[in-house]
Amino acid sequence: MKPSIPKGTRDFGPEEVRKRQYLFAIIREAFVRFGYEPVETPSLENLETLTGKYGEEGDKLLFKVLTHVAGEEGPTAKRGLRYDLTVPFARFVVMHQHQLRFPFKRYQIQPVWRADRPQKGRYQEFFQCDADVVGSPSLMYEAELVSLFDQVFTHLGIPVRIEVNHRMLLAGMAVVAGLEDQFTSMTTAVDKWDKIGPEGVAADMERRGISPAKAAHLLEILQHNDLEYFRDLLADSPIGTSGIEEMDVFLRYLAITPTRNPVVFTPLLARGLGYYTGCIFEVKPEGEGMGSIGGGGRYADLTGIFGMQGMPGVGISFGAERIYDIMEARQLFPSDLTGTLKILFAALDSEAHHYAFGALQQVRNAGIPADLYPEPDKLKKPLKYAADRRIPFVAIAGEAELALGHFMLKDMTKGTQESLPLAEIIQRLS
Amino acid sequence: MKPSIPKGTRDFGPEEVRKRQYLFAIIREAFVRFGYEPVETPSLENLETLTGKYGEEGDKLLFKVLTHVAGEEGPTAKRGLRYDLTVPFARFVVMHQHQLRFPFKRYQIQPVWRADRPQKGRYQEFFQCDADVVGSPSLMYEAELVSLFDQVFTHLGIPVRIEVNHRMLLAGMAVVAGLEDQFTSMTTAVDKWDKIGPEGVAADMERRGISPAKAAHLLEILQHNDLEYFRDLLADSPIGTSGIEEMDVFLRYLAITPTRNPVVFTPLLARGLGYYTGCIFEVKPEGEGMGSIGGGGRYADLTGIFGMQGMPGVGISFGAERIYDIMEARQLFPSDLTGTLKILFAALDSEAHHYAFGALQQVRNAGIPADLYPEPDKLKKPLKYAADRRIPFVAIAGEAELALGHFMLKDMTKGTQESLPLAEIIQRLS
Repeated sequence: MKPSIPKGTRDFGPEEVRKRQYLFAIIREAFVRFGYEPVETPSLENLETLTGKYGEEGDKLLFKVLTHVAGEEGPTAKRGLRYDLTVPFARFVVMHQHQLRFPFKRYQIQPVWRADRPQKGRYQEFFQCDADVVGSPSLMYEAELVSLFDQVFTHLGIPVRIEVNHRMLLAGMAVVAGLEDQFTSMTTAVDKWDKIGPEGVAADMERRGISPAKAAHLLEILQHNDLEYFRDLLADSPIGTSGIEEMDVFLRYLAITPTRNPVVFTPLLARGLGYYTGCIFEVKPEGEGMGSIGGGGRYADLTGIFGMQGMPGVGISFGAERIYDIMEARQLFPSDLTGTLKILFAALDSEAHHYAFGALQQVRNAGIPADLYPEPDKLKKPLKYAADRRIPFVAIAGEAELALGHFMLKDMTKGTQESLPLAEIIQRLS
Repeated sequence: MKPSIPKGTRDFGPEEVRKRQYLFAIIREAFVRFGYEPVETPSLENLETLTGKYGEEGDKLLFKVLTHVAGEEGPTAKRGLRYDLTVPFARFVVMHQHQLRFPFKRYQIQPVWRADRPQKGRYQEFFQCDADVVGSPSLMYEAELVSLFDQVFTHLGIPVRIEVNHRMLLAGMAVVAGLEDQFTSMTTAVDKWDKIGPEGVAADMERRGISPAKAAHLLEILQHNDLEYFRDLLADSPIGTSGIEEMDVFLRYLAITPTRNPVVFTPLLARGLGYYTGCIFEVKPEGEGMGSIGGGGRYADLTGIFGMQGMPGVGISFGAERIYDIMEARQLFPSDLTGTLKILFAALDSEAHHYAFGALQQVRNAGIPADLYPEPDKLKKPLKYAADRRIPFVAIAGEAELALGHFMLKDMTKGTQESLPLAEIIQRLS
């Protein structure tokens, strides 16, 4: 009879929710300032919308939901829970294409569900925070999204390195190294660089059937991180040259909006996802061996999976759960988060309790989160209650205060107290 | 291949999301000011947490989710989607009882899912907005929750009537009318008063086996709506007298916090839910035959279903979907909702486009949502784009503006335009 929650899911208490609200509010505020508009899609999608969109592994991780269909016997699994925000967004764009104006800039902050084996830091229900602009090839959006990353992480207090690369440069390198027919094997291996190092990448490439000589050639290329080197290297590769040209346009826009965090050209940034076709980004916290806390890139075709052609775009995603963990570990959340109670009233007798209840409403009407200990009581219990709820001030009313029209304001941090009229208390807390 | 979403679910586009954010923010802000703290529970609960908690009908409406359990063949339905916010909150209180301080005041704004037959205004996924305080019998909370209703509906611009009653008064009336053994039948019938009128209630009571004489007696009693009448009527009923006494205490607290909307003692307010034991509330929009847009009441036992005794409380719930519909119909949403784009930059040539891109960042850095048309273009397309996205100002840059360090600021509402330096534009929009 002891209740529990499913493995891989979480209850969030008041402090955690306030911290999460703080984090999401900062991300949302930046999305809005940058002209992204909110979209929300249902948690339940038709299973056929989801199936086959996330690879074989993804299909296994879809949560299926039973529904009764009229006239059919027994429930059937015709729906699934949202697995990411990209496929529902693609469906949204196709379904609402005639109401939308392109380029369409949307942000979406919603939970997704994955039937993954639960483990530390991996949950079956977690939030994604995405922004995408679709319907324009302009590289100014790449620059603005890098700037958005820069501003949000500056605001959050997490120094980061923003790595950028271009899938066409990777394609050019593949040509140079003779790997154009093994491009996916190559990028999949290179994508693991951070985890397994160059030797690991070489071994992985060989395991995937890439010759040691070609692997070595590619690794030699990847020692470089100067765009000018690649401009020369790829001069004869049309796709490589296109990549260089796009990088130039992107970097010119970027130069107009100086960032506080370093933006680093990183030729070995590959991004596993096959659907990226242009600039790609990844955000890494400085000074950690940790994985990325943000990423994204340009794709040529968002909506082809739903039969609508010619919808290019570029998007980014914040790794909210990891960002939360970093902020928690580094104590980056403000101590006076919005929604924290500012003052508790307490009364010594019934008369004073009604007096305090009236004062309470005035404080609340002034926009200050406030509460009243529910019963007249000796001070011990209300003070303990205030301490437990970490309320910084207690306003006490007894006969003496009532006669004066005052409250005894106790500063719980300093331990001092002072008899004051209510107006003065409201002013101090405002 | 045409994508669709399940019946009973909804996509929300930018304007709808902004309106929903506005509504939820007002409710949340009031919850916070009144000292309620946020809690969030997982969308997925163990099926055994949910089953049997919502009656036979409710069990049928639970969405069941399939999971693979290691070592078992085939998927099984061991989880369900959150059906309301009360049962998960009860589970939360039991599981976290040793970390919580009582009285514990929580608010929760999250979606719930019901496998209901979809129809106009009834969805399979919708938000609930609840606030509850548990662990105290104090009637000051009843008064504060009525005040909270009053403030939120005032803020939203919906004049309402807040109906209040007390389950013990209903119990006393049952005693007087000789219906104490048919209390549930009586309250279930009376609960339909708004829909079926007194004759309908009488017929419904008779159908439930209540004698016509007793039904007529009860209806006669229910013609009255003066608390003093009930004070006399119930003087010999201990439970009725307790109800009167609680109403007195509640009304004394309420008198300290005058409301803008009428709070009306309504003896025929019954609230269908059996678990209410004290004061009950319902909020109805003035001047409509519509149902309630808020409600709540006191209960003696939140957590008994999970084996934890002695946890009384009082709570309210906002009918967010209905409130939204009323606000939409009456055009109560502000036209300049937070997050609406304020200005679009447009450039006539590539040089001006980079110039505008730099200005764009400065406007955004000043906290103003802003955008830039992605390509240099004749003005026709950017102006149409601004009109379609309902952006009130367009700042145009061509050779002349670039030379001056200005932008031509076009007011899309008035149709006027003016050449201005950027600083001036930022000041006007701030």
